[in-house]
Amino acid sequence: MTARPANAHQARLLKLLRDEGPHSRAQLGDRVDLSRSKLAVEVDRLLETGLVAADGLAASRGGRRSHNIRLAPELRFLGVDIGATSADVAVTNAELEVLGHITQPLDVRDGPVAVFEQVLAMAAKLRASGLAEGFDGAGIGVPGPVRFPEGVPVAPPIMPGWDGFPVREALSQELGCPVMVDNDVNLMAMGEQHAGVARSVGDFLCVKIGTGIGCGIVVGGEVHRGTTGSAGDIGHIQVDPGGRPCACGNRGCLEAYFSGAALARDAMDAAQQGRSDELAARLAAAGVLTAADVAAAASAGDATALELIRAGGNRTGQVIAGLVSFFNPGLVVIGGGVTGLGHTLLAAIRTQVYRQSLPLATGNLPIVLGELGPAAGVIGAARLISDHLFSPA
Amino acid sequence: MTARPANAHQARLLKLLRDEGPHSRAQLGDRVDLSRSKLAVEVDRLLETGLVAADGLAASRGGRRSHNIRLAPELRFLGVDIGATSADVAVTNAELEVLGHITQPLDVRDGPVAVFEQVLAMAAKLRASGLAEGFDGAGIGVPGPVRFPEGVPVAPPIMPGWDGFPVREALSQELGCPVMVDNDVNLMAMGEQHAGVARSVGDFLCVKIGTGIGCGIVVGGEVHRGTTGSAGDIGHIQVDPGGRPCACGNRGCLEAYFSGAALARDAMDAAQQGRSDELAARLAAAGVLTAADVAAAASAGDATALELIRAGGNRTGQVIAGLVSFFNPGLVVIGGGVTGLGHTLLAAIRTQVYRQSLPLATGNLPIVLGELGPAAGVIGAARLISDHLFSPA
Repeated sequence: MTARPANAHQARLLKLLRDEGPHSRAQLGDRVDLSRSKLAVEVDRLLETGLVAADGLAASRGGRRSHNIRLAPELRFLGVDIGATSADVAVTNAELEVLGHITQPLDVRDGPVAVFEQVLAMAAKLRASGLAEGFDGAGIGVPGPVRFPEGVPVAPPIMPGWDGFPVREALSQELGCPVMVDNDVNLMAMGEQHAGVARSVGDFLCVKIGTGIGCGIVVGGEVHRGTTGSAGDIGHIQVDPGGRPCACGNRGCLEAYFSGAALARDAMDAAQQGRSDELAARLAAAGVLTAADVAAAASAGDATALELIRAGGNRTGQVIAGLVSFFNPGLVVIGGGVTGLGHTLLAAIRTQVYRQSLPLATGNLPIVLGELGPAAGVIGAARLISDHLFSPA
Repeated sequence: MTARPANAHQARLLKLLRDEGPHSRAQLGDRVDLSRSKLAVEVDRLLETGLVAADGLAASRGGRRSHNIRLAPELRFLGVDIGATSADVAVTNAELEVLGHITQPLDVRDGPVAVFEQVLAMAAKLRASGLAEGFDGAGIGVPGPVRFPEGVPVAPPIMPGWDGFPVREALSQELGCPVMVDNDVNLMAMGEQHAGVARSVGDFLCVKIGTGIGCGIVVGGEVHRGTTGSAGDIGHIQVDPGGRPCACGNRGCLEAYFSGAALARDAMDAAQQGRSDELAARLAAAGVLTAADVAAAASAGDATALELIRAGGNRTGQVIAGLVSFFNPGLVVIGGGVTGLGHTLLAAIRTQVYRQSLPLATGNLPIVLGELGPAAGVIGAARLISDHLFSPA
C-alpha cells in the first residue's frame, strides 16, 4: 500500500469504514457532511487508490441497489506489543480484526537487535501461515517512553540498550512498510478504545499493571502523550514519603510497593518466611515465583496471597484516586498481566478510589478490568498505524 | 452584539484578530488557508456584521495600500472572577485588553443572590465610568466545579447555597448579553495562556493557591474540564494516609496542610503558642491572621512564617510532582492569592518536583509564578465568552 487519502474527507471515510465496517453509498452520505456529488467523487477516488473496494449489494432503500463500500480486504497491518518479558505479534485486516496472534517470552533487556530478530521471526511465521502476503503498515509498542514523532525510545528505565535506538526507521526498512512506535500502555488504551471496554468513551484512563505500572491517558478520543512522551508514567508517583527505597533512587514510589516485579519479590519473602504454604510449595517446585503464582495461590484461597494483592490494590487505588480527582475521567480501565489477580485487585482499587476521590468525580465513574487481555496491545498497535495511514500524507 | 461568525473560516479570522491584533488583508491571506477571493468574501461579510472594522492604512507591500482589518473597537466584554472572599470585575475590549478593573471583598457564602447584587453593582460602576455602553458578552468564574454546558455550579464545597443555581441564565437576563460560566481556576489558566506566562504553551498546568487549591489543565491549547466538570480538583488529593483530618471528611488531604485557609489557621496556632513574635504582634493588632500576614511576616524575615510557607510548598510540591509524572506538561504555573508568598513557596515546590518526578518529565520543565496576578481571572473570563461568541452559532 503506498496510497494515502488525499484530503480530510477521504481520511474521515476511511476511518468510518475501519471503525464501523462496510457502508452503502447512501449510508456514507448520512454520516459525512458532503453533497451527494462530492461524496461520489471522493469514493470513486478512494476506489481508484485501491484503499477501498466495492463488495456485495447493499440493502435497497427504495431505489436501485448499490454495492457496499468497504476497506480493501487484502490490506494487512502488523501489530507488535513488546513487554518486559514477552512479545505479542499479530496480523490484522484494515478493520483491525485479529487474523492471527502469537505470544513468545523474551527479555527486553537483551536489547533491540536481539528483540527485533525474534519479533521479525514471529512476523515471518504469521506471513508464512498465509495470513498476509506482506504488511501495509506496522505499529510497535515498547515498555517505556517514546519520542513519538521520531519513533525512538527515550531513557527507558527497564530497557537498557534501547535509549535512542531508531525503532521506527530500522523496522520500516526491515518490513518494507510504514511503521509507528508508541509506549505499550498507550497502545493498550487505544486497543480498549477501539474494540474493548472503552468503546465510545472520550476521556478515560487505562492503568496497565505488568512488570511495572503505567497509565494511558485519552483526552477527547486522542492519546495524550505529554511534552516529552512520558505522560502516564505513574509508577514513580510517591505513595509514602520516606517509604520503601525504589529502583529509581527515590523512596516510597508506587512501583516499590506494587507491580508484577514487586509482587513476585513480596511473594518470595512470604514463602521464605513461612507465611504461606501454598507459595512455599510453588517456590520449591519452580525455584522462583512470579505474579502468576500469586494469582494462582489467591485462587486457591491462600490468605497471604490475597493479602498481598489487596495491599497492592490499596496502594494503586491511592494513586488512581488522586488521578481521578485531577483528571475527572469517564472511565478507568485496569489491564496488564496482573489482571489475573482479578476481582480481589479490582475491589481494593475501587474501595480506595470511591473513598478518597471527590463524590462529584466518582458519582458515575466505572472502574473495570480491560476486556481484550493481550489482544489490546496488538489491536492498539494496528490502530496506531492505521490512524497514520488513514490521514492525509 | 447579536452577530456570530457564519462559518469556521470567519471564526478563525475573528480569533486571529483577537489574539494578534489588526492585520492587513494580505497578512490575513498569509495566515488562513483560503483563496484570495474567498478570503475577500469572508472579510466583507464580517465587515457587514459589524464584528470587524476597517481601520487605518496598512503598510504597503508594493501594491495599493489597503485598510487594516481589526475587531470592532466598540465591542465590550465583562470579566467576573468570584473568589471565596473577594470579586474581581473588569471590562475589556474585543482584543481582551483590560480597560477597567475593580476588586472588592465579599463572602461567597452569602449565596448567589447577594454576591451577584454586588457584582452587578461593580459592573454598573464600570459602565457609569464611560468604559462601556453595554456588554456584548460576559464570562463568570466561580470558586467551585461547574457543569459547563449549562453554566451551573455543582456541589461546590465552599459555596453553600450555590448548588444548581442557574448562574448563566440569571446573569444573561440581568446583563442582557450572552454569558459563560466556568471554574475560577480554569479562567486563571486561560488568562495566563492568553496574555501571561503560558502564551504559546499547548500543554500546561496552572495551580491556583487561594482559600483552597485547584489546578487548571490545558491540553492541546484547550481547557480540560473532565467528565463532570470537576477536573483539577487537587485540594483533596491525599498527601499523608491517616494524616490530618480535612473538612471534606477524609484524612491527609493537601488542603488540610496547605491553602490560604490552612496557612491562616497554622499562623494563628504559631502566634498563640508564642512561636513567632511577628505573627503574635499582627494577631494582637488585627484580632485575626490571614495568609497575607504570613507573607508579610516572611518578608520581614520571620523564621516561623518562612517555615510555614516552606512546609506548605513541600506538600504542594509532592502533589504536583505526581501530576507532572502523570501529565508530562510543558509548563507549571503557580498563581492565586498566596503568590504573595513568592519565591520561598516556589523554591519549595520546585525542590519537590525536581526531586520526585522522572527526569524525562522535568528535564525542560519550567515551574514559574503567574504573570498577571488578579488580572488572570478576568482576562480568562473575557477569553471564555469571546471563544463562545467567536464560534459559529
